[in-house]
Amino acid sequence: MKNIQVRLEQRPEGLPTDDTWRYTEEETPTLAKGQMLVEQYYISLDPAMRGWVMDRRSYIPPVGIGEVMRAAAVGKVVESNEGRFPVGTYLYGMGGVQLYAVTDGKGWFPIDPTLAPLPVYTSALGMTGFTAYFGLLDVGQPKAGETVLVSAAAGAVGSMVGQIAKLHGCRVVGIAGSAAKCDYVVRELGFDACFNYKTDHLHQALKTHCPDGVDVYFDNVGGEILDATLGHINVGARIVICGAISQYNNFARVKGPDNYLSLLVNRARMEGFVILDYTHRYLEAAQAIGKWLAEGKIRTREHIEADIHQFQAALNRLFTGEKLGKLVLQVGSPA
Amino acid sequence: MKNIQVRLEQRPEGLPTDDTWRYTEEETPTLAKGQMLVEQYYISLDPAMRGWVMDRRSYIPPVGIGEVMRAAAVGKVVESNEGRFPVGTYLYGMGGVQLYAVTDGKGWFPIDPTLAPLPVYTSALGMTGFTAYFGLLDVGQPKAGETVLVSAAAGAVGSMVGQIAKLHGCRVVGIAGSAAKCDYVVRELGFDACFNYKTDHLHQALKTHCPDGVDVYFDNVGGEILDATLGHINVGARIVICGAISQYNNFARVKGPDNYLSLLVNRARMEGFVILDYTHRYLEAAQAIGKWLAEGKIRTREHIEADIHQFQAALNRLFTGEKLGKLVLQVGSPA
Repeated sequence: MKNIQVRLEQRPEGLPTDDTWRYTEEETPTLAKGQMLVEQYYISLDPAMRGWVMDRRSYIPPVGIGEVMRAAAVGKVVESNEGRFPVGTYLYGMGGVQLYAVTDGKGWFPIDPTLAPLPVYTSALGMTGFTAYFGLLDVGQPKAGETVLVSAAAGAVGSMVGQIAKLHGCRVVGIAGSAAKCDYVVRELGFDACFNYKTDHLHQALKTHCPDGVDVYFDNVGGEILDATLGHINVGARIVICGAISQYNNFARVKGPDNYLSLLVNRARMEGFVILDYTHRYLEAAQAIGKWLAEGKIRTREHIEADIHQFQAALNRLFTGEKLGKLVLQVGSPA
Repeated sequence: MKNIQVRLEQRPEGLPTDDTWRYTEEETPTLAKGQMLVEQYYISLDPAMRGWVMDRRSYIPPVGIGEVMRAAAVGKVVESNEGRFPVGTYLYGMGGVQLYAVTDGKGWFPIDPTLAPLPVYTSALGMTGFTAYFGLLDVGQPKAGETVLVSAAAGAVGSMVGQIAKLHGCRVVGIAGSAAKCDYVVRELGFDACFNYKTDHLHQALKTHCPDGVDVYFDNVGGEILDATLGHINVGARIVICGAISQYNNFARVKGPDNYLSLLVNRARMEGFVILDYTHRYLEAAQAIGKWLAEGKIRTREHIEADIHQFQAALNRLFTGEKLGKLVLQVGSPA
């Protein structure tokens, strides 16, 4: 079968551009014993990708120049040479940005397409949902009655964080980048409030919408919003550092939170986490989220772009914010 | 008796100066029922004082204009009108910068001058020691074999932190501001290493002295050293925010740690604490530290300046670093 692949051509200085990638076409290889060929349908586009193409010590090695770009994906086993999963099995794993992935199945999980639409396995039922689940519950440790603030609230992770926090009895306040997103977050997802960081005055909005202060701040953006929030945290607050998308255009000059001494005054903590550390507990998260989805207690939304050749254009939406919910690139059609 | 008091005259913009204070002389008042008059001998000078004179929401209300400057002190009950402690009792409490304090005894602790010299009750056996004890053990949670890094290592808190960490089986590395201080820290206090942040290249020194990375960083200084250290922390590291003396000359423009995303990559946390939260556990710390002192397992050193009129000159040594160990102002002589 003809495979099309997106490979890292050169490391971007700021945000990735067309020049960052190179497309290759090649025939899928003959499978070695134990290998499977996975036909991929949906590729997960995530802010973390910006970090993966940096040549820097991190929680996983960077994608090498010339290598297929790393990405989570949903697909189906279409060939197998005594592989772990039979032909026809739907899988979720790190298949990369390509039409077909060859794998021995390590790190791939079978998924059930009758329980949820396939794209949902890249969002609520994939690492996005797991990130929200463990980041909020394990690192943030929200208690009923507390105020949970979430940035990038209309995004894939943020929208899950807020809904899970609501299910735990918290007052949930979102921050998003447009009135439409704020509307979505409050009306469709049930957040108690949401404000627009592009038009509202940060300190005033935090005061208005978090009148009792902030107990848990789930930070996806960094920058000014993190700094402003530090001025509104309560004693014993937990700040979960999930990402810092506002800083991803220039990793060489990340702006730290000048207001960090608020951690001292408020005996608060700021803590980072990496979802890969929770691999052994993915099942727990998948079951909890699956149950909430089935009961209609949480909603998920995918923004699907099509065509592998649109990879860069689609990816760019993560940084411009022109999308709602989980950004997914469709590269194939399940029969 | 004639009392001399140092009162807050105006809030400093940068570091305090002579203009910050006003001296008053007044007769000690007639004691109301339940009150005692404490003759004070040693006044504790601490970096936290810089924060206490700021007009800003913090963990305790700021010192008001015209009020006696807040300070911990050691003294003796010399008069009592049916007070909680009999005349002759030595006490440690927040007596303020003055020769005599009037109190109902709330928040004062009796101390035994036969167990340790009186100045030690402002350092190892006072809030300084308790800060090191709870900050390191409760917030930092060091494990045997881990590397503990301490800034302001020759200072009152830092020197205790390092020695307590050694007693818990850690590799302990100090950062100090002169070769003499580094010498003291290594030779007298038993740290494994210490480097001079004024002359050594930070990243190179961290690499050299923390070859296995940093597991616990006890931060007394903030600024560049905090930022550099973030580049050398291990997975799961704990950064204890105890203070940020490098930033105290200009609270309006504190510099945050730009390298904070290292918390994410390393699943690490940065956490502040306030010693007043541990009041109910002071006895535990005093007993542990008292035992180590008695066994000769930790050493303490006080830098004693004399004369209440030298308060500002003495205080300034905290910020210039011209002192070793705990800075104390002697304002009286126990008979």
